[in-house]
Amino acid sequence: MQRELPILEMLAKGDEYFLPAVSVDNVIFGFHQDELKVLLLKAKHGNMWALPGGYVFKDEEVDAAAARVLKDRTQLANLFLQQFYVFGSAKRTRLELSQEAFQNIEAELMKSKWLMQRFISVGYYALVEYEKVKPLPDDFSSECSWHDLNNLPQLIFDHREIIEKALLTMRLQLNNQPIGYNLLPREFTLKSLQSLYETILGRKLDRGNFNRKMLGYDVLDKKEKHFTGGAHKAPYLYSFNKQKYFEALRNGLKRDF
Amino acid sequence: MQRELPILEMLAKGDEYFLPAVSVDNVIFGFHQDELKVLLLKAKHGNMWALPGGYVFKDEEVDAAAARVLKDRTQLANLFLQQFYVFGSAKRTRLELSQEAFQNIEAELMKSKWLMQRFISVGYYALVEYEKVKPLPDDFSSECSWHDLNNLPQLIFDHREIIEKALLTMRLQLNNQPIGYNLLPREFTLKSLQSLYETILGRKLDRGNFNRKMLGYDVLDKKEKHFTGGAHKAPYLYSFNKQKYFEALRNGLKRDF
Repeated sequence: MQRELPILEMLAKGDEYFLPAVSVDNVIFGFHQDELKVLLLKAKHGNMWALPGGYVFKDEEVDAAAARVLKDRTQLANLFLQQFYVFGSAKRTRLELSQEAFQNIEAELMKSKWLMQRFISVGYYALVEYEKVKPLPDDFSSECSWHDLNNLPQLIFDHREIIEKALLTMRLQLNNQPIGYNLLPREFTLKSLQSLYETILGRKLDRGNFNRKMLGYDVLDKKEKHFTGGAHKAPYLYSFNKQKYFEALRNGLKRDF
Repeated sequence: MQRELPILEMLAKGDEYFLPAVSVDNVIFGFHQDELKVLLLKAKHGNMWALPGGYVFKDEEVDAAAARVLKDRTQLANLFLQQFYVFGSAKRTRLELSQEAFQNIEAELMKSKWLMQRFISVGYYALVEYEKVKPLPDDFSSECSWHDLNNLPQLIFDHREIIEKALLTMRLQLNNQPIGYNLLPREFTLKSLQSLYETILGRKLDRGNFNRKMLGYDVLDKKEKHFTGGAHKAPYLYSFNKQKYFEALRNGLKRDF
């Protein structure tokens, strides 16, 4: 299927190119200076922001559509991306808001019954290495940038709810699945891993307890210390054991039961 | 919107009644004699079985559609029902299989472009009290009955994968969220709760460890023992503290971090 036409042209004939009624929205989290950030797009006209999202080509897996959007906006491939919820409210894409968000599009497109139909959206969340991302706006946006979760701008539709649900999902998964791969540099201290957990959970954790639990999960490799100069006081560095990490992601962290 | 027409009549004009491209499928689990069962429908013609599922009315929430299907097949309302995954493969509803599954439908319907389009399916899982369910087939099925998870019949499309994913999700959630409400009678012993956990996890658990952990979660109320006859040796009965249970369902079980 021809996918290389300009997006506006394809949307005008949405029926020919895309699965009807289904969109994807990506909550892309990055971790920077002990803060959790989310990547947002600013509409070309108006003051509304939106999650990076898109539509699903007729012959495309839904998961592949989300991965495509993620790659297009971050310019990075093979990132951790996980489906977390379907937003299926009957009134979530209200026409009057669509029109504000899409007012930069030519009048012809606004008449497109396809674009103006009810959409459900499959929500995905991604964890990315903040420093490596080169944010790139899409054709509807003037800007693609990181925003502090505690200070979100005005968002279209139910996008605030989608972000909140992604965060809640990540918090719940923290008890059950490892996190940190792609959010932290390849080697890190237990202190910075704890800081990531504290940021996601929104509260302080006991250090001894955290270290004991985390090491008990058996997903970390301890790195050799390099004694260079005064570095003998430097804390140990760890990295994720990729095999154990992804096994724990699939099957859950080691538990007593 | 008129929803009381016969389903075949509505499907023949699917465009008028339903959201395109989106279906729901429910994995309905029941617990009986230490075995986990799943509720399945047998197609009127052929030997294929299917999950209870359906389509989403144009003005209906996706979650509400799944709840409606659950109620129609079990004749019970207000059950625990949770969205767990979207099955979005481009080839999951293969036409040749649809035709076998739907061959009881008049020829007119088979020509319905609406029914023959690509569908993604939103998967839900439900936990129900086995004894209370009165299984009721839908218009495409001759039978609605419980099946042992370890001995599933031939299933259409990706329905086996949907069941496996539901089970995996439930296993992962076991570490994080309480389970048992609606699966066990109102009052139960720790032994029968442990048996439920063992059935879901597919392995034996240490009793002392299980009891300690479970009580630590603080979602159970201990019931008064009634000393009648030789019952002084009977184990304590427990029930779920509904408020604490549902709070833990939302926010995760109590953890050290």
